[in-house]
Amino acid sequence: LAVVSAAESLRYSRSAPRRWPSRLFGVIVPELENPIFSAFAQQITNLLAQGGDTPMLCTQTARGVSEDRWIELLLERDVDGIVVVSGMHADSHADTERYHRLRAMGIPLVLVNGFVEDVDAARISDDDRTAMSLAVEHLTALGHERIGLAVGPERYVPVIRKVAGFVEAIKAPPRTAAPLVEHSLFTLEGGRAAARRLLEQGATAIVCGSDLMALGAIRACRGRHVSVPQDVSVIGYDDSALMAFAGPPLTTIRQSVGAMSEAAVRMILDEAAGAPAPREELLFQPELVVRGSTGPAPARRKTVPGVGSRRRQRPASRRA
Amino acid sequence: LAVVSAAESLRYSRSAPRRWPSRLFGVIVPELENPIFSAFAQQITNLLAQGGDTPMLCTQTARGVSEDRWIELLLERDVDGIVVVSGMHADSHADTERYHRLRAMGIPLVLVNGFVEDVDAARISDDDRTAMSLAVEHLTALGHERIGLAVGPERYVPVIRKVAGFVEAIKAPPRTAAPLVEHSLFTLEGGRAAARRLLEQGATAIVCGSDLMALGAIRACRGRHVSVPQDVSVIGYDDSALMAFAGPPLTTIRQSVGAMSEAAVRMILDEAAGAPAPREELLFQPELVVRGSTGPAPARRKTVPGVGSRRRQRPASRRA
Repeated sequence: LAVVSAAESLRYSRSAPRRWPSRLFGVIVPELENPIFSAFAQQITNLLAQGGDTPMLCTQTARGVSEDRWIELLLERDVDGIVVVSGMHADSHADTERYHRLRAMGIPLVLVNGFVEDVDAARISDDDRTAMSLAVEHLTALGHERIGLAVGPERYVPVIRKVAGFVEAIKAPPRTAAPLVEHSLFTLEGGRAAARRLLEQGATAIVCGSDLMALGAIRACRGRHVSVPQDVSVIGYDDSALMAFAGPPLTTIRQSVGAMSEAAVRMILDEAAGAPAPREELLFQPELVVRGSTGPAPARRKTVPGVGSRRRQRPASRRA
Repeated sequence: LAVVSAAESLRYSRSAPRRWPSRLFGVIVPELENPIFSAFAQQITNLLAQGGDTPMLCTQTARGVSEDRWIELLLERDVDGIVVVSGMHADSHADTERYHRLRAMGIPLVLVNGFVEDVDAARISDDDRTAMSLAVEHLTALGHERIGLAVGPERYVPVIRKVAGFVEAIKAPPRTAAPLVEHSLFTLEGGRAAARRLLEQGATAIVCGSDLMALGAIRACRGRHVSVPQDVSVIGYDDSALMAFAGPPLTTIRQSVGAMSEAAVRMILDEAAGAPAPREELLFQPELVVRGSTGPAPARRKTVPGVGSRRRQRPASRRA
């Protein structure tokens, strides 16, 4: 509490008494259209509110409100701490000044899914490297030899880590083929574009950087009359809501949203209470959830898939 | 502004100067796990933030924070207005005292998707009746004669309206069969349970009260080896995110989330500026989005579906 009081004198010159009965914590997420961010938003804000604090959920927009603008608004409202999920800290090219400034003002900070080396903040991430080895092992066991990775822009920390984990897993013996990695946007359209390029290079399996990208990859396959999973297997990332209901039900890497949210809330509350959380990054173990979008590698691998390769779909009940 | 100032003197006995540079608006939604609520939350908060105001997004939880608790927290923070989406106002059995109290304090209020007759608030709803006639017309044109409705608990206003619209549409000539209506929970499991009962009564088409219920209904069909849409057609409601990627892609009724959010924000800003919004309920026209979960009625209608009725799925590319 000493930290907060010191910070207040820095932030506000006027001496109006603090009249809020509960503490205010900012929770900044990129947007709510991707269901993985909705899940983090829901869990973190619920945990804060259940503890008697007031969460202010801040979602960004393309045209409008940025992370920096939200930080300003939160400072104006005397915020007691900020949790940032997949924010600018995930962009290795972004300026870290905003976070240094917050820390200099004594505002506790927890950064989720990204990493900034030199900022004095608690950090929590999904273990992207382990996730990639789970995905590659699953596909290798199914007989796939030409496995591609479809991920977002190169400058993002979770992308850098996924690529490193993927290359490491794919290089492990007895893999010999050069790793296929295609960068695009994090979106459905990005997944579609990256998947098209991977299919052209003969991939029979595509690991994606997000569930949205995976849904886009499945679209790319359909656009070429390539069946999933008969001709090509697709793995998502996140296990966001309703992926079991996708067509086909999506095999994906599940982020531990519950455990990560609990840790983020515990850390921001500790920091706000003047008990700094550990500065080592906490890495959470993801799980592989096997559903209907992955299957055995096709017997004959095709360099240009899509020609005469459509097979009968498995009955719906087996995919569900 | 006169309204807000008067309200403030009612709300707070102490005379500390107001030091917030932007107005605070509460946006209360049930939760973020159902993507339709995420969509409303994202749009309404973005519009408020883009206009220079600060939205506080309030999501409820089963064990924890209720709508009433959020209203308390917002009052403690000197809220300038509250938008409630699918809140207690949608429950026809709920006490309306909470809303009368807010209005007596001068807090502007906009209620979305629900209706309370006697509260002095602006009201916006999706037109549930029109939606049901769109759904029934589509299914009738496809040759369906035994159409069921799977909706949430009877006491909710949108449910009452959907049932009324459905019964009206189904009774229109040349329909003669008695309307099949099954109430359950709003969830996936609720949709599954209601759909099972409708299948037992020989329905070849099921209209659902939400997309989640529709996904549950498709599960119920699969559990009985009934193919969607070959044996049974299913229509969702909301057109929430990613329903085009469901298996099969979901035919659904699209709520005008964008237009409804814009109206809600315009109204709450008008009210906060002392210019009361109209008190008639604004009804927004939904649209039918036809995808792969509806198709022609099966040639021979079965009273007990699921026996030897599985057919080959249509090629994936035609469903997508």
